[in-house]
Amino acid sequence: MDSSANLIERDSRTSFRVLARSGNARLGELVTRHGVLQTPLFMPVGTQATVKALTPDEVENTGARMVIMNTYHLWLRPGPEVVHKLGGLHGFSRWPHAIATDSGGFQAFSLASLGKITEDGFAFQSHLDGSKRLLSPEESMRIQGLLGSDIAMQLDVCANANSSYEELVLAMERTTRWAERCLASRDRQQALFGIIQGGTSWELRSRHAAELERLPFDGLALGGFSVGEPQDVMELLLERLVPRIDEARPRYLMGVGTPANIVHAIAQGVDMFDCVMPTRNARNGQAFTDSGRLVIKQSRFKDDPRPIEDTCDCPTCVLGFSRAYLRHLYMSREILSHRLLTLHNLHHYGRVIKRAREEIARGRFDTWASEQLALWRQPNL
Amino acid sequence: MDSSANLIERDSRTSFRVLARSGNARLGELVTRHGVLQTPLFMPVGTQATVKALTPDEVENTGARMVIMNTYHLWLRPGPEVVHKLGGLHGFSRWPHAIATDSGGFQAFSLASLGKITEDGFAFQSHLDGSKRLLSPEESMRIQGLLGSDIAMQLDVCANANSSYEELVLAMERTTRWAERCLASRDRQQALFGIIQGGTSWELRSRHAAELERLPFDGLALGGFSVGEPQDVMELLLERLVPRIDEARPRYLMGVGTPANIVHAIAQGVDMFDCVMPTRNARNGQAFTDSGRLVIKQSRFKDDPRPIEDTCDCPTCVLGFSRAYLRHLYMSREILSHRLLTLHNLHHYGRVIKRAREEIARGRFDTWASEQLALWRQPNL
Repeated sequence: MDSSANLIERDSRTSFRVLARSGNARLGELVTRHGVLQTPLFMPVGTQATVKALTPDEVENTGARMVIMNTYHLWLRPGPEVVHKLGGLHGFSRWPHAIATDSGGFQAFSLASLGKITEDGFAFQSHLDGSKRLLSPEESMRIQGLLGSDIAMQLDVCANANSSYEELVLAMERTTRWAERCLASRDRQQALFGIIQGGTSWELRSRHAAELERLPFDGLALGGFSVGEPQDVMELLLERLVPRIDEARPRYLMGVGTPANIVHAIAQGVDMFDCVMPTRNARNGQAFTDSGRLVIKQSRFKDDPRPIEDTCDCPTCVLGFSRAYLRHLYMSREILSHRLLTLHNLHHYGRVIKRAREEIARGRFDTWASEQLALWRQPNL
Repeated sequence: MDSSANLIERDSRTSFRVLARSGNARLGELVTRHGVLQTPLFMPVGTQATVKALTPDEVENTGARMVIMNTYHLWLRPGPEVVHKLGGLHGFSRWPHAIATDSGGFQAFSLASLGKITEDGFAFQSHLDGSKRLLSPEESMRIQGLLGSDIAMQLDVCANANSSYEELVLAMERTTRWAERCLASRDRQQALFGIIQGGTSWELRSRHAAELERLPFDGLALGGFSVGEPQDVMELLLERLVPRIDEARPRYLMGVGTPANIVHAIAQGVDMFDCVMPTRNARNGQAFTDSGRLVIKQSRFKDDPRPIEDTCDCPTCVLGFSRAYLRHLYMSREILSHRLLTLHNLHHYGRVIKRAREEIARGRFDTWASEQLALWRQPNL
């Protein structure tokens, strides 16, 4: 797993360089067609071309400079041709910074009915209108090209946590074949990341990482985590695997996770993250704080005049919306509840990732991370 | 109906004076505990202590300086004691300008189950938890006092459009008796408005107006409009009735209406309005424009790159969110759809009411209003 092993020269739709290291953690610079981004970075999830409940300027104010949007959903509605005509996802959503898109494979398999995986791709019926569709590697590249994201993801096969060894091998091998088909049919203006599979097997993960490193991807992602495996299994695997992945390319841990998961993974050398947790949990009335998670519907907040967190600089806390008011909005199912909690949570994630970058730059990331993880992992959190 | 007929001296929780007239239309100044407001004014509706989907600063940016909140809903949840403890509705909701509250009677009768009107008040079971409640004039005053609104409304009996003459008389007479009970038990720091009933009968409306004018209310409201009667019936009645209501006090037409309804009523001398239409219609995908209403889900907008309205200065239009994107958000049931359309509609209402004030100041309101109403009443609108 050495970058010198790359046999194929990569194009540079993106370029990446490591600016500083602290242990295995890296401070990096990712140049995209829509801005120069600092890594580690966290991407808020904007499934339907909107980070739910927020405007682009509010997302920007959380510190985020890249969001991830969903190929499956946008393919079915409004359709990639419509998005393309409106100027791609950037023009469509008015988000001016970088955008990544996933491949659509995960949703095609999990949301659609009668889904079936063959060597061609995912055959399924739309969950919206029942129409028959085939999401092949080539189709995923065509759609993502029309969507115009800065970073596209290869179509992959994500095995679940209960898969047998044989199933993991088949998923991994097909992912490699699809990786080659994606590279052959990609939009050459768009960066493309490969996705390392292999479940919880160290042998398969390391074998698959080596296979994908030989391909001219612009970055390498770790897929198939947070799919039901125990947390310590994920952590041990990341500790062994991440430091061995090609140093020259950005490493992206897909769909993970809590602030603690993210800090742990940064310590291993991961550069990019996305997760629905800050936004989805907000809509379920859960606020992240430095001293744990706060479940706003609890009756102890009924007449609590304090903001979610005294020390927080998010608009929700700064403008003085009380826990009592936020509880009332949540109990009344008011849209403003979703807005104010989503703002708070994305600011929390933004602060954690910014602090991580600062601690790497200072060369004391591991010390900070150990303290922070110990704090977060107290029983009350 | 002459202010000299007032036998009882009024307190001044609010004060009101007419600054200019144009025909029967009035430009006025309403001084409240939370600011000096220009009339005519439009109050966005914040039922649950939030104008649905917006933050207080966004509501303020539409030009609104008073909102109306709902006594019934806030009584049942979170309870007026909680709101009081958090600093009243101003501290609770962080809306810094004036607030009116309705009496709660309308919802107690229409939303609650097993509702029954007696001379005591509205006996009903909560639509939330089935608890038995009695909303009497005294209880409505107590609740509104705790909520701390600038302007409270008396508890009234609102007959529906199908009521017989006898039912209208009973509703009206009870409203007068409740008016006296409200005045006797009011929070003396709070302005209190009486509510003129009488359905579509000119005789009853004028009789009731005269009865309530004799009471020391800070303003007089017209209730029981837009409850199912034909629009021309409402208009004829307003044309006869409004100019005869005590000139010295603000006149408030409750729950009305479209921009055309509002301009017509201003021409008769109405000063204050509230209506759910701009906010509720927004959530149903309808945008008000100078050239009619736009139903965003229509397929003709599927790839329309234009903003809702080229000439509009609302954030939705200025930031360039296209009709195509707004349609996509609406079809995907995204919260951002509600936000962006609500912003647009309240800015539209804000512009209409501001223009009305300007035209009164210039002394040419009726000319402008006739042109505007003719435009709005074209068949395509």
